Amino acid sequence: MNGRTNVVVVGAGFGGLAVARGLADAPVEVTLVDRNNFHTFQPLLYQVATSGLNPADVAYPVRGIFQRQRNVRFRRATVTGVDWEAGEVTVDSGDPLAFDHLVVAAGAEVNDFGIPGVAQHGFPLYVLPDAVHLRNHILGRFEAADADPAAVDDGALTFVVVGGGPTGVEVAGALVELIDKVLHRDFRGSRFDVRRAHVVLVEMLDDLLPPFRPGSRRYARSTLAARGVEVRTGTSVAEVTATRVRLGDGTEIPAHTLVWAAGVKAGALATALDVPTGRGGRITVAPDLRIAGHPEAFAIGDIAAITAGDGSLLPGVAQVAMQSGHHVATLIQRGVVGEGDAHAPFRYRDKGSMATIGRRSAVTELGGGIRLTGTPAWVAWLGLHLVYLMGFRNRVSVFVNWAWNYLTWDRGARLILGSGEGERGTTSTGSDPEA
Amino acid sequence: MNGRTNVVVVGAGFGGLAVARGLADAPVEVTLVDRNNFHTFQPLLYQVATSGLNPADVAYPVRGIFQRQRNVRFRRATVTGVDWEAGEVTVDSGDPLAFDHLVVAAGAEVNDFGIPGVAQHGFPLYVLPDAVHLRNHILGRFEAADADPAAVDDGALTFVVVGGGPTGVEVAGALVELIDKVLHRDFRGSRFDVRRAHVVLVEMLDDLLPPFRPGSRRYARSTLAARGVEVRTGTSVAEVTATRVRLGDGTEIPAHTLVWAAGVKAGALATALDVPTGRGGRITVAPDLRIAGHPEAFAIGDIAAITAGDGSLLPGVAQVAMQSGHHVATLIQRGVVGEGDAHAPFRYRDKGSMATIGRRSAVTELGGGIRLTGTPAWVAWLGLHLVYLMGFRNRVSVFVNWAWNYLTWDRGARLILGSGEGERGTTSTGSDPEA
Repeated sequence: MNGRTNVVVVGAGFGGLAVARGLADAPVEVTLVDRNNFHTFQPLLYQVATSGLNPADVAYPVRGIFQRQRNVRFRRATVTGVDWEAGEVTVDSGDPLAFDHLVVAAGAEVNDFGIPGVAQHGFPLYVLPDAVHLRNHILGRFEAADADPAAVDDGALTFVVVGGGPTGVEVAGALVELIDKVLHRDFRGSRFDVRRAHVVLVEMLDDLLPPFRPGSRRYARSTLAARGVEVRTGTSVAEVTATRVRLGDGTEIPAHTLVWAAGVKAGALATALDVPTGRGGRITVAPDLRIAGHPEAFAIGDIAAITAGDGSLLPGVAQVAMQSGHHVATLIQRGVVGEGDAHAPFRYRDKGSMATIGRRSAVTELGGGIRLTGTPAWVAWLGLHLVYLMGFRNRVSVFVNWAWNYLTWDRGARLILGSGEGERGTTSTGSDPEA
Repeated sequence: MNGRTNVVVVGAGFGGLAVARGLADAPVEVTLVDRNNFHTFQPLLYQVATSGLNPADVAYPVRGIFQRQRNVRFRRATVTGVDWEAGEVTVDSGDPLAFDHLVVAAGAEVNDFGIPGVAQHGFPLYVLPDAVHLRNHILGRFEAADADPAAVDDGALTFVVVGGGPTGVEVAGALVELIDKVLHRDFRGSRFDVRRAHVVLVEMLDDLLPPFRPGSRRYARSTLAARGVEVRTGTSVAEVTATRVRLGDGTEIPAHTLVWAAGVKAGALATALDVPTGRGGRITVAPDLRIAGHPEAFAIGDIAAITAGDGSLLPGVAQVAMQSGHHVATLIQRGVVGEGDAHAPFRYRDKGSMATIGRRSAVTELGGGIRLTGTPAWVAWLGLHLVYLMGFRNRVSVFVNWAWNYLTWDRGARLILGSGEGERGTTSTGSDPEA
């Protein structure tokens, strides 16, 4: 082609973007490929799901992100596999992508652990359409209760959130806020009692937020409880139907909504690559993040089984994806330029964790033993996210929405739209030749 | 129920909202019903379709709009018919809605005039999902060209817009802007030549913008042409397939996109009501907008055949909907209170027309012979829309997006998302009990 080293990066999530950005000054051509033409800021998906933000506020067109980085091209496609011999990534549309180096950053999938009914009836929260679908469903349940108040007895307004990690805690906290502060006004005068809406947070372990210290965990639990969330730890889910959730202890909860935030596993691509994988199907990597048996390829982020210093697996969080992506970019550049250790091991630096519980309430644990709770933690959380988002042009509307929401409790994103909903009032189906 | 007069308003568009707002001080209970839980600001749909605005920027939750108006309730449902004897509106979910007065404001549907292929392959632009679907398709065609440049020869980047009225003109103008100013940068370095993208505007009559004066029409035509739109007047469409558009003169254009902005007819509800209808299936109304044979019911806006002073039918535009809605509210209030002429005829006051052609370019004709073109017209157009939108809280993000777009040409809404697109990378289908 052009004599330059071709680097193909599969996935435009936190990891893939870090690799592409990290190679800005390297003498390589980067091709970033993703099934969507946008990057999703996943930490805020729970806000989309609870009508706090609009979908477009957390989605950034990849072509726009790299408009000024001349050595990055983008291909919108779903990767179907890798032809290792030919050194090509095969895709569902168009020509395969030839590579000299490959970085697999395709992320994870929801893991239902084989529990009956979760796949068919559960609402995951891992990608943007999940959040839109869940939002439409939540609002739809309130509309359904308004149309037929008897549905409330059947569980229309009972929302079970499974998973006591940051995602589950954030969803549960934001959901009670949506119900208490906003929907209660939207449905004033309706034929059902909004106060019957109920949120249950279910966690299999004995406590919420495992990565956090006891003080933070207690704060999160008591804050959620004070806001009306029924917290059930040491509880598992045995089965899910469209209207019922059966717990491990035999209890059956009438509920039309089960949010599944209980775990992920490696994305399907890990299996398709025919490479060694470890726990959760995650790709086995060497200390320098190279894929076993394929020295020209790396795996990073949620799809990779990256071992920490103590032998444990690193969690599938944004920090790990970003740092591992940056590390791989460094190694590739060193290898191409011929300077430095192109096989240096990856060392993860845990900079802390944050989780919000609601308005002006969060838990934050940073390096150096700094632990915050309540409003200071929420401010730190907000600040960090704003700094990250500032890196993306045109995100002013996100801040405006947030500011408005904070001042007025008015969650403007209360639309039942998208994910197939919102009928077109026409006779035309407008079919798409590419569908 | 409560002894107060019940007014049911079918449709939360411009007309329905005007009725509900107009009855704010009347001793009545208003029930507004719509298949969507949001009102759509239709004049800006073409901006959503061309990635200038996000869907949520032009959609306003109805419950939010009427939060402070105590005598308005909302029901999200699709109206299936009216039981005139029982005085009830039947809906697809929940109990029927009893009324003392009924206002039918259900709007229009796209009219394909029976032209083969339009219903299956055309992209209308009447409701919000239409705009999202069209946007995704347009962006998708560019991605498809990037994956396989040969598709360009097949018409992947040829966009035919049918209809030379304001909607068609606005779409065509915004589309060339999107291509020339934004997508050309997004697809820099791609394997196809963005300059091959082409917009054709087809109009059956001999000129564009029939409601405007010759000076405005000439301006619109020359401006579009100067910006690269191929304007074909006196041309009709004979047939449409997924990849070809055959014109009335036999010419065949390879094109993967046909935007159908050529006409509407009354919504299906008009037929279901079993009342006299006129041209285009629109409901026949008396001078006071009452439905023939049903003195307790009114029809307004696009679904009604409202006659102007000169005997012609009023067009299906926002002004007509708003004024007719306000008139009906006045009549209902007079009837309930027992003061004033509850059968006063409706008199439409044409306050002028506006159409944008692109950035800083529009045609505006206001009352009193004021005619503007170019930047002044665009400013007037912008100002009028902002004033209208100001009436809706939480629309600050719209202004911000617009301002950003104006300053930077960066259309931030370049997402392929919604209307079923955007795969969920999980094994769960998250099925919805209400689906």
